[in-house]
Amino acid sequence: MNNQFRRVLVIGAGLIGTSMALALRRASGNILIDAVEGQDGYRREAQRVGVFDSVWPDITAVQQDYELAVLAIPARAACSLADSVSEVAEWTMDVCSIKRPIVEVFSRIAAKGRRCVPTHPMAGKAKGGPGAAEADLFRGRPWLFLETHPAPLQLEQMVAELGAVPTYVHSADDHDRNLAYLSHGIHLTSLSAMQAATGVEIDVAARIAGPAFWDITRLAASPSGFWIDTLLDNRDFVLEYLGGLQVEIQRFVRALQAADEELLRDLLDQARGSREGVEGARARHKAATETSD
Amino acid sequence: MNNQFRRVLVIGAGLIGTSMALALRRASGNILIDAVEGQDGYRREAQRVGVFDSVWPDITAVQQDYELAVLAIPARAACSLADSVSEVAEWTMDVCSIKRPIVEVFSRIAAKGRRCVPTHPMAGKAKGGPGAAEADLFRGRPWLFLETHPAPLQLEQMVAELGAVPTYVHSADDHDRNLAYLSHGIHLTSLSAMQAATGVEIDVAARIAGPAFWDITRLAASPSGFWIDTLLDNRDFVLEYLGGLQVEIQRFVRALQAADEELLRDLLDQARGSREGVEGARARHKAATETSD
Repeated sequence: MNNQFRRVLVIGAGLIGTSMALALRRASGNILIDAVEGQDGYRREAQRVGVFDSVWPDITAVQQDYELAVLAIPARAACSLADSVSEVAEWTMDVCSIKRPIVEVFSRIAAKGRRCVPTHPMAGKAKGGPGAAEADLFRGRPWLFLETHPAPLQLEQMVAELGAVPTYVHSADDHDRNLAYLSHGIHLTSLSAMQAATGVEIDVAARIAGPAFWDITRLAASPSGFWIDTLLDNRDFVLEYLGGLQVEIQRFVRALQAADEELLRDLLDQARGSREGVEGARARHKAATETSD
Repeated sequence: MNNQFRRVLVIGAGLIGTSMALALRRASGNILIDAVEGQDGYRREAQRVGVFDSVWPDITAVQQDYELAVLAIPARAACSLADSVSEVAEWTMDVCSIKRPIVEVFSRIAAKGRRCVPTHPMAGKAKGGPGAAEADLFRGRPWLFLETHPAPLQLEQMVAELGAVPTYVHSADDHDRNLAYLSHGIHLTSLSAMQAATGVEIDVAARIAGPAFWDITRLAASPSGFWIDTLLDNRDFVLEYLGGLQVEIQRFVRALQAADEELLRDLLDQARGSREGVEGARARHKAATETSD
């Protein structure tokens, strides 16, 4: 690839930042990849992983310019650091799970003539930190961009080199609403199901619960740190989703209260139709993606 | 085994009944296993599977006595047939997913001096019918009995021979409430999450939804037949669970509306604590079960 990024700075040597470094290093060995990591423990762990050329404790310690800087830190920290990071890089991108605050900050920076791209790789795992990083973390996963803020070709190519699928949604609003419906709200649904099930003795649940229980409540095991900020930053759309969820549950409540078999059948059939619709669309999308390889 | 059941009649050659026959046949080849199956298609399919000695179209066609009859049909049908089935068997058991109506009918029959045992194997799969049956369907799965209606030793031994784990809950009420909280209510939670997510365009959802979305909404794909009767028969406890679920969702709504970070953290931590509690109990139970083998 001719116009590859050859000097990359990763802000935040956590799971995502270090996984990106591992994947970039595997794809093209002879590039410079530095990191900035403020936490001592993460910095030592990142140095042990050995994928970064240098790991600086602070953006002010950075001594040179880069072709690409990646904000791989939580959205609020990314918003605070974006300006100073964009001073040392030709291109600045983020990988945060919410896009409205990022786009707002990037717009202000872009007014100074700097080039910023909001992005969001749909990848992660339960355990965080540089020690949990994997070069394959992004393989086959969508890497979201916004039509309102298109990425340069070389950035889309880099994402594809990491194994991800560059995928456009309309706008930051559209992104955040989709994530509320497909991830953040789903997360709270799982936690609510777990809490509602505490009406059963723990030992009984442990002995008799089947796969449905374990699958539907599994997100309750997630560490809370990431989620608190994400849910608060996206709370308007998450509340919209939860409002819709309450309406759907209330439909089942009414059907059961009335012992209305026909209504209940309709509701079950509608849900099956919805699921089959999205499964079908996924199968078509997968087939189309594989054909175009 | 000395006091093994040597003449078994299975009422309903569906997934569960035929799987039981396959597992029994594998465990002890030289026993008689007949079936009664009213649906022509199922009867032909069961005959093709070849595990039954005879497959009768109707209980009135049955020509002999059995040591054990298994009601492997939906609860309402099981309640209707229990009396006539118990006339031709020393022991009658059911395998229905709800226990209160069964226990009521079994009590009336027991008053005539017949011996009936309510049971519920926690096993199944998406596809039904004799063609989907597997001898391993019950392996490692709990097979529920009621302390109020203990099984004879030979029945517990048979269940263990099928690979299942005989597991007692207190009573029919207790069983039905537990199932509402761990299965029936969980099912409706998954369907509600699916319907609430239809606020996102199908093609967008198909491209960007991650494992959380696919896992939490997966039960929406289930065929509705079994579920309509089960949900209606257990509607009081399912409504109790859904009421609790609505309370839990409303807690998140309030925390987000108030942007109350501390409350949100408490709720996430509580859910994680609940999940870890039940995971820990499962691990202890598993360790204890394996030690006792």
